[in-house]
Amino acid sequence: MKKDIVYSVPGFTASAVSAGLKKGGLLDLCLIFSQSQAVVAGMFTTNKVKAAPVLLSQKRIKRGIARAVMINSGCANACTGEQGLRNAIQTAEMVSHRLDIDPDEVLVASTGVIGSQLPVHLFKQAVPALVRDLSPRGFESVAQAIMTTDSFPKVSYFEGTAGGAPFHLLGVAKGAGMIMPDMATMLSVLVSDISIEYETLWPLFRSVADSTFNRITVDGETSTNDMVLIMANGAAGNSRLDATGKREFEKGLTSVMRELSYLIAKDGEGASKVVIIELLSAATDEDAHVAARTLSNSYLVKTAIFGQDPNWGRIMAALGRSGIMMEEHKVQISINGVAIVEGGLITSPEKEKEAAEQMQNEEITITIHLNQGNSSDRMVTCDLTYDYVKINAEYRT
Amino acid sequence: MKKDIVYSVPGFTASAVSAGLKKGGLLDLCLIFSQSQAVVAGMFTTNKVKAAPVLLSQKRIKRGIARAVMINSGCANACTGEQGLRNAIQTAEMVSHRLDIDPDEVLVASTGVIGSQLPVHLFKQAVPALVRDLSPRGFESVAQAIMTTDSFPKVSYFEGTAGGAPFHLLGVAKGAGMIMPDMATMLSVLVSDISIEYETLWPLFRSVADSTFNRITVDGETSTNDMVLIMANGAAGNSRLDATGKREFEKGLTSVMRELSYLIAKDGEGASKVVIIELLSAATDEDAHVAARTLSNSYLVKTAIFGQDPNWGRIMAALGRSGIMMEEHKVQISINGVAIVEGGLITSPEKEKEAAEQMQNEEITITIHLNQGNSSDRMVTCDLTYDYVKINAEYRT
Repeated sequence: MKKDIVYSVPGFTASAVSAGLKKGGLLDLCLIFSQSQAVVAGMFTTNKVKAAPVLLSQKRIKRGIARAVMINSGCANACTGEQGLRNAIQTAEMVSHRLDIDPDEVLVASTGVIGSQLPVHLFKQAVPALVRDLSPRGFESVAQAIMTTDSFPKVSYFEGTAGGAPFHLLGVAKGAGMIMPDMATMLSVLVSDISIEYETLWPLFRSVADSTFNRITVDGETSTNDMVLIMANGAAGNSRLDATGKREFEKGLTSVMRELSYLIAKDGEGASKVVIIELLSAATDEDAHVAARTLSNSYLVKTAIFGQDPNWGRIMAALGRSGIMMEEHKVQISINGVAIVEGGLITSPEKEKEAAEQMQNEEITITIHLNQGNSSDRMVTCDLTYDYVKINAEYRT
Repeated sequence: MKKDIVYSVPGFTASAVSAGLKKGGLLDLCLIFSQSQAVVAGMFTTNKVKAAPVLLSQKRIKRGIARAVMINSGCANACTGEQGLRNAIQTAEMVSHRLDIDPDEVLVASTGVIGSQLPVHLFKQAVPALVRDLSPRGFESVAQAIMTTDSFPKVSYFEGTAGGAPFHLLGVAKGAGMIMPDMATMLSVLVSDISIEYETLWPLFRSVADSTFNRITVDGETSTNDMVLIMANGAAGNSRLDATGKREFEKGLTSVMRELSYLIAKDGEGASKVVIIELLSAATDEDAHVAARTLSNSYLVKTAIFGQDPNWGRIMAALGRSGIMMEEHKVQISINGVAIVEGGLITSPEKEKEAAEQMQNEEITITIHLNQGNSSDRMVTCDLTYDYVKINAEYRT
C-alpha cells in the first residue's frame, strides 16, 4: 500500500469514528456499506468460545447476502453470555435502522478485551455520525479503527479484469496477537465490485485463505473473535466468470490476502523480524504442515531468531518433537539461502558465521528439506521479543 | 532440602569436577557410582532427535543393571552423528576403565548446546580426578555440575522403612528450559539403597514420573537429551517388598519426584512465579490433560500471569482453542481460591479485584471446573517473562 493513494471500490462506502471505546479519541468504530446487495462469504474462528458478534454474523451470513459490516475495537464482546448477544443484535439494529436496510443484512465484528459488555450507549451516540460519514474513500480510516495492539494499519488493493470488465478488490485487516489461524483467524474484510456467484466465491475464498491467512502465526493462540469476510456487489458489471475470469479473481484474492497476512506477521506483537518457514520434502502434507507449525510456534526457535543466532540445534529439536516422520541424518537446513545443515550435521563453522550474518536481516527464510517425500508447506511468523512479553503482560493495565 | 544437611545414600558415592566444558571454572562433569551392581530403570526423551548419550544409555539400560552414571553439562552431544556416538562410548570407557567395571555398566548423560562435538580431551584430563574424588557426600556437587541455565541446584531426599529395614532415596535434577515432558524429560538421577526387583521398580517409577515429571512445563519444548534414571543397589538389606513396602517406596518416589519437578517449574527460565493448573470435571482424562497442557503452554496466559493480571478471558480463549469438550456457560474459574468466573461469566468486579491481589503471590493456583464429567489433571508451570526471552535470545552468545 502506498501512503499517498486512497483506494476505493465502486458501490462501496466506509467510515470510522471515535465512539469512546478506546482511550484518547482514537478511531474505534467503523462501517462498510454496499449500495446494493452483495454476495457475502466468511470464515470464523474455530475456538469453541465464540464471541457474540461471531455467533450473530455466522448465523446471518448463511443467507449469502449482506449490505453492511460494522466493526468495533476496544471491546471483544466475548464471554458476555446472553446479554452480549442481545447487545450485538441491538447495535446492529441501530445501523440497519439508520441505513434503512433489513437487520439481517448487517454483520458485526468486535475486537479488544474479552469479558466486558459492549457499552451500547456509546454506539447509540456514535452511529448517526458513522452513517453520515460514509464515503468511498473511508477504507483507510476503517483500517485504523480496527487496530488493537497493531502498530500500523493494514490495507491491500488489487485491480484486474474478469468477465470483460475491470474489477477492484480491497482488503483491510488487523492482527498483532492471538494469531494462529485455524480455518480463519484475525479480523479482515475484503470488498470487491466483481459480479460473482456465491458458489464460485466461497470455494475460491476458502482455498486462498487456507494458503494465506491460515499459514501465519504469532503465538499459536486462536482468538474468540476471528473473522474474515468478503463482500462482492457486482458493480463492475462483468459477465458470468469463465475459467480465465475465475483465475484472474483468484489471482487478486491471493495478492490481497497474502499481503495482508504478511503484514499481520510482520506486525506480530513486539516482532522485530518476519520469519518464513519453508518445509520441503516431507512424507505427507500433514507432516509438512505440523512441522512448519511447530517451528513457527517454538518459543526457543523464536527467541533464537530475536537473538540473531542461527541456532540450528533448536530447529532440529523442534522438528524432532513435532511427531512427524523424519530421519536426523537426512535433514538439510538453510537460512536465507546459506546451507548450514546437511545430513543432519553442521556444514562448517564458516557457513554458520555466514548464517549468523544473514540473521541480522529483517526477513529470515528458514528452508528445511526433510528428504522423506514430496510434500511441502510454508508458514509466515515472527520472532519472540521482550516487547511481546511487555505488550501482553500490560495489556489490560 | 535444607542447606546445612548433606545427604548420602549407603553404597553410593558421587563426585564433580570442573573439566572446562563450561566457562569460569564451574563444575561441569560428575559421576555417581554404586559400590555394588544396582537395579536400574530409566525414561528417555520422546523427541525423534535423540542425543548420542540418550541412544547409548537407552541401549545399555536394557540389561536392568548398572554401576555408574557420568553426566556432563556444557555440551549436549546432540546432532553430532556417528562421531558423537563414538565419543559417548569412549568417554564412558574412560570411567569404566578407571573404576574397573564392565563398560556396559556405565550410563552417560549430557546437557548443553546442541550440535557441538564432545571435547574428549577434556574428559581424558578430568576423569582421574572425578573417580578419585568419589565420596558419599558428593551429591550436592553433582546437583551443581548438571546445571545449565538453572539458577539453583535441585536435590530432594526421603527416608522410609520398607521390608523391615530403613531405606534412603536421593534425587538430583536439572531443568530450566526446553521443558515439556512426554514420558520423561529433563535430566534427573535418583539413587536408593532399597533392595527391589526390576519388575517392581519399573512400573512404580513410570507411574510416579507420569504424575510428576510428566506434568510440568516451562515452554512446551522437548529436549533431545531428556533422561530420568533410578538406581537401587540393595544396600539397605531389606527383605522382599510386600504391598506395604511397595507403598512406602512409592511414597518416597512421589515425594522426591514431586519436589524435584516443582523445583524445575519454579526455576523455569526467567520465571517469577510458579503456576499450578488444576483442571477439574472434564469429560475425559484426555480432555483434562489437553486442556491443562494448553493453558500451561499458552503465551498469553503466561504473560498475563507475569503481569499479575487475572485475565480470565485468555483462560477461556485457551480452553476454547484446546479442542476439548466444553460449554462456555458451564465454566468456573478460580485463582488462589477466589471464584472469578461462574457460568462462563465474571462473578463481580470485586472478585476480579480480589483475584488481582492474589496474583501478586509467587505461587498461583488456577482451578478450572468444566462441569462436563469426572476427569481431572494437574500441571505445574511458570510465567513467561522478559528474562525467558533474554536467556534464550542470548544463550549461545
